[in-house]
Amino acid sequence: MPRYKLILEYDGTPFVGWQRQNNGVSVQGVIEATIEAFAGERVTVTAAGRTDAGVHARGQVASFDLLRAFPTDTVRDAINAHVRPHPVAALSAAEAAPDFSARFNAIKRHYEYRVITRRAPLALDRDQAWWIPQSLDIAAMIEAAPALIGQHDFTTFRAAECQAKSPIKTLDEARVEVEGESIVFNFSARSFLHSQVRSMVGSLVQVGRGKWRPADLRNALEARDRAECGPLAPPSGLTLMRVDYL
Amino acid sequence: MPRYKLILEYDGTPFVGWQRQNNGVSVQGVIEATIEAFAGERVTVTAAGRTDAGVHARGQVASFDLLRAFPTDTVRDAINAHVRPHPVAALSAAEAAPDFSARFNAIKRHYEYRVITRRAPLALDRDQAWWIPQSLDIAAMIEAAPALIGQHDFTTFRAAECQAKSPIKTLDEARVEVEGESIVFNFSARSFLHSQVRSMVGSLVQVGRGKWRPADLRNALEARDRAECGPLAPPSGLTLMRVDYL
Repeated sequence: MPRYKLILEYDGTPFVGWQRQNNGVSVQGVIEATIEAFAGERVTVTAAGRTDAGVHARGQVASFDLLRAFPTDTVRDAINAHVRPHPVAALSAAEAAPDFSARFNAIKRHYEYRVITRRAPLALDRDQAWWIPQSLDIAAMIEAAPALIGQHDFTTFRAAECQAKSPIKTLDEARVEVEGESIVFNFSARSFLHSQVRSMVGSLVQVGRGKWRPADLRNALEARDRAECGPLAPPSGLTLMRVDYL
Repeated sequence: MPRYKLILEYDGTPFVGWQRQNNGVSVQGVIEATIEAFAGERVTVTAAGRTDAGVHARGQVASFDLLRAFPTDTVRDAINAHVRPHPVAALSAAEAAPDFSARFNAIKRHYEYRVITRRAPLALDRDQAWWIPQSLDIAAMIEAAPALIGQHDFTTFRAAECQAKSPIKTLDEARVEVEGESIVFNFSARSFLHSQVRSMVGSLVQVGRGKWRPADLRNALEARDRAECGPLAPPSGLTLMRVDYL
């Protein structure tokens, strides 16, 4: 029974998120229906990151099994042909080891969060960035961010509905950069808690707004208390960029 | 009677183009309705570039008169408040000289055209680039493009419905660059013929596909014959970036 590994790009705007749900169209549901349409098999597709509603992907990784083998180029092209008009694309398809799991074998996940600060609302980038009408203190955010790096109890930055067994995670990267009109935050870790990136960005923006001092971010982390988190950043700015495997 | 100059950004996807028409929603119509909503005056708004359906702007310039004066910040913010949910934003509003025309006083218009070549269709950039599934010969396009620079009779690259009196225009810039996953074409001129940029890009892509030699672009230009133009590039890849005034 061949197992396949897909790399997927999607615009998260019209979806209820990655995971199949009863209240709307999910990326998982669309991909599973697409595979059934060309292969005639009902499959369950597992993803590296269960992105929330409105969150995008440029490098989501997903895995699934088929009873009947297809060439990998056929899998990729057939998904792209059948997935229309949904804004999802299979960038590649490859054969994977029989025990490969896009979710459990991932050794690093890379997320990018984009903020645009300007007086005018966003027209072209409205679904792909967080619009903040006031300018932010970028130097203060750059000063604050490294406090998040390393192994910590991230309870402060964890959504109430998070199902992870432990709130302890190791953050490998927390970078703040200016790219043209955007402020771009990059986060990498083996795995993240539910809403962790949006919680960390929302808290960093509190620093950028001058409502928190840089040291307040460390204090919030060390409090291990959800009540100490800044307001959750909206999903539109978040993109799952890449997932690494051994 | 104060005259105002606006800088506008818009996502052209849902519009029939800049110009008011009977067959759908135009950017001009939306902006005029927005100004009427906050100022209570029916105005006619003139733009530097009458962009086609699906063409975007990051720096369109428009001018209009009001009988009653408003502070420029109020004009900008009121437009942004009333224009929702249309994907149009006023980046700035300024007072202009009584004889200023966004259209006739423009001394240079800058357009960008973006192509993405990859096997998989575009999910995140589907409305903001031209997807070409085959790779293109970028060196050949870079070699060909300079033939377009200078003063020429651009009849080959002019839409049948073009209303300009003369097909003679002076192209100041025709640049082909690679930016990440994209091939970006930049064109600057005092003014352009109808569909000129999309016609030039469509012809350059013929060179990139190897269907034309670089010299064939010059031959097409010199033929002064619309039948010699390559297939028109789709509107989604085109953005009016900036307009210069004295």
